[in-house]
Amino acid sequence: MTSSLTERARELDAAHAATDLRGRFRLPAGMVYLDGNSLGALPAGVAEAVADVVHRQWGNDLIASWNDADWWGAPTRVGDRIGSLIGAAAGQVVCTDSTSVNLYKAVVGASRMRPGRRVVLTDPDSFPTDLYVTDAAARDAGLVVERVSPADAVARIAQVGDDLALASYSSVDYRTGELWDLAAITREAHDVGALACWDLCHSAGVLDVALDTHDADLAVGCGYKYLNGGPGAPAFLYVARRHQDDFDQPLAGWNGHATPFAMAPEYQPAPGITRGRVGTPPLLGMLALEAALVAYDGVEVAVVRERSLSLTGFFLECLDALLPDLEVATPRDPARRGSQVSLRHPEAFAVVQALIARDVVGDFREADIVRLGFAPLYLTHGDVLRAAVHLQAVLEGREFERAEFRERSTVT
Amino acid sequence: MTSSLTERARELDAAHAATDLRGRFRLPAGMVYLDGNSLGALPAGVAEAVADVVHRQWGNDLIASWNDADWWGAPTRVGDRIGSLIGAAAGQVVCTDSTSVNLYKAVVGASRMRPGRRVVLTDPDSFPTDLYVTDAAARDAGLVVERVSPADAVARIAQVGDDLALASYSSVDYRTGELWDLAAITREAHDVGALACWDLCHSAGVLDVALDTHDADLAVGCGYKYLNGGPGAPAFLYVARRHQDDFDQPLAGWNGHATPFAMAPEYQPAPGITRGRVGTPPLLGMLALEAALVAYDGVEVAVVRERSLSLTGFFLECLDALLPDLEVATPRDPARRGSQVSLRHPEAFAVVQALIARDVVGDFREADIVRLGFAPLYLTHGDVLRAAVHLQAVLEGREFERAEFRERSTVT
Repeated sequence: MTSSLTERARELDAAHAATDLRGRFRLPAGMVYLDGNSLGALPAGVAEAVADVVHRQWGNDLIASWNDADWWGAPTRVGDRIGSLIGAAAGQVVCTDSTSVNLYKAVVGASRMRPGRRVVLTDPDSFPTDLYVTDAAARDAGLVVERVSPADAVARIAQVGDDLALASYSSVDYRTGELWDLAAITREAHDVGALACWDLCHSAGVLDVALDTHDADLAVGCGYKYLNGGPGAPAFLYVARRHQDDFDQPLAGWNGHATPFAMAPEYQPAPGITRGRVGTPPLLGMLALEAALVAYDGVEVAVVRERSLSLTGFFLECLDALLPDLEVATPRDPARRGSQVSLRHPEAFAVVQALIARDVVGDFREADIVRLGFAPLYLTHGDVLRAAVHLQAVLEGREFERAEFRERSTVT
Repeated sequence: MTSSLTERARELDAAHAATDLRGRFRLPAGMVYLDGNSLGALPAGVAEAVADVVHRQWGNDLIASWNDADWWGAPTRVGDRIGSLIGAAAGQVVCTDSTSVNLYKAVVGASRMRPGRRVVLTDPDSFPTDLYVTDAAARDAGLVVERVSPADAVARIAQVGDDLALASYSSVDYRTGELWDLAAITREAHDVGALACWDLCHSAGVLDVALDTHDADLAVGCGYKYLNGGPGAPAFLYVARRHQDDFDQPLAGWNGHATPFAMAPEYQPAPGITRGRVGTPPLLGMLALEAALVAYDGVEVAVVRERSLSLTGFFLECLDALLPDLEVATPRDPARRGSQVSLRHPEAFAVVQALIARDVVGDFREADIVRLGFAPLYLTHGDVLRAAVHLQAVLEGREFERAEFRERSTVT
């Protein structure tokens, strides 16, 4: 059975050879890295770019780099580059802060654009920070949060009607990898006069969320997953151009001021997306992210999406052949699948550890999820098969029962 | 006259030889860098530390570094190191976000610790982001901001009395370099039952603000000035231990949760200062800052302060001798002086540009300030004299009248 899968992997890799961009990354030898949805791999060129920032831009040119290296323009410059991967025309994305901080801006900002409306809808299964920040922002803005599955969001939006301020959802579920219907939820929110905000953490860089096409209002996302910006890379905030004049966000820092160096005593938000900025940007991380995005040069997200679906589809094919009884949490319908395949197993934590011992790196998510992310730029169908074969060995050899794999010492 | 100053510089440098730590920095040859209060110089070891983070921790070890390199612990670990420079015992400082974001947390958090009190006092001459963020936080928390000079703050605090929630001031004025009385303002705030928050951007690393000794309640500050953490290095937040259980900050992100990896549906703030965290920390910048702080190893801030006052005092001595008519905006009384000397000149912008052309790098601040920061770790009295001599040449040679120096193209 494995030999026919080996042949199939070879065929698929040959068919997708044009989008094999492993050469643009520096991956540890021998590892199958299926955690690029937690921390993307190191792209080629980043180390050199960061060294240049440290030695030349900072060490040698010092403060002059704000102008000479255009440090000042980095948040919108990098924002535009991210925008091109999420279907946002230039001038609508700023790279800044963390996803959590940006979501706070978005929720409070949305509430101010829809005064008098009291309800925010969000997913009970959202990544926790989305739940916490949405609750906190709602409390501060005088809103009520209703937790409604994205599967039921369209119906609930219609029911809440003109009391709805915002529908705030993730495009892809961080745990199951299910891809939700951004277009339908956004459209329904608009039909009742509300706004829609999208968390793109698990979408940006692997599927075409087409924000402008679908008239999305607000979006946030992080820079360190499929965008490969490095640990704690700055996040991004999208505000559709039509809302920017009305976007009144609570973190009124000087970097978002219309004339930051005039040192004016009153806050006057900058025109455009710049008003999403707050304090001095984290330049080391931001310029690392900028260098990382070079990995996407000349690559359309639609093509990345094709490769992603081929990889996850082939992984499901391998599981069907090798581990037919394994419970798959991710939808088999490609139209409902992000770029990961999640499995349910009562010993999920230990399974992940046993896989890591075999140099197949995924991660565990409470309560019983083995989460395997397929970063399309640097994975091959051959990698996918290797992962499946190792998983079979872990499960059939009951390696997850070993004490060393069951000890919970890790934090991520 | 210059020859006696040269002799004096030599004597002072000999007397302070034990605290000459230039060898711990990588400074451009020939430059007198007086802008370490805007962007600190590159410490030795930072480039190597950052390269290790990129190549080994990220590139090779990938997600395992959250545990193996203790990325997860970085915000409190680096926070404690900063704490040791600002008189804060361990467990009260977290390195996170930007100063602006941290000030927002502090002001809203303070208002929640003093419910029913309506007034926040702050300095009309604060760095603008402090004004903007304080206004924004006050609006969100239902407070009124009164802008009162720190010179008048003690009297005004007594008048406002039990309607005062918070006195929020900078320890050192960013423009004039005046050092305000943290102890007296904090004490008076406490006398009326209010809290005091301090912005330490221009104090941390150059003078002993002794937060614990003076019973400060809250403080914020940045990592890229005298702490030398690099462009956009993460900032810090201090919450005195006695307030931590009650510190309810608005940016309730998952990194501040008591059990972040349990993925609990409700926010439960972590015990201690960890609740000041929000999203995934900007690790490249934070680990660069950690490596930068090695420059302070074995050095007491009180000793740094002595050197700082000697440098700024000698600069004033040089000005008295070389440019007796120049208007000095910074107090001559050492007890009222931070680590900078600011000058007033109607052509301040052009003066700064002309100095930069002579490799003496300071900065301009609206409207008429030539701002010269004296980072004590890497400047000598010889540098101070060189700066004064070049300034004399610029002013007496009227170099600031040259068109090339008057053109406003810079942003910082």
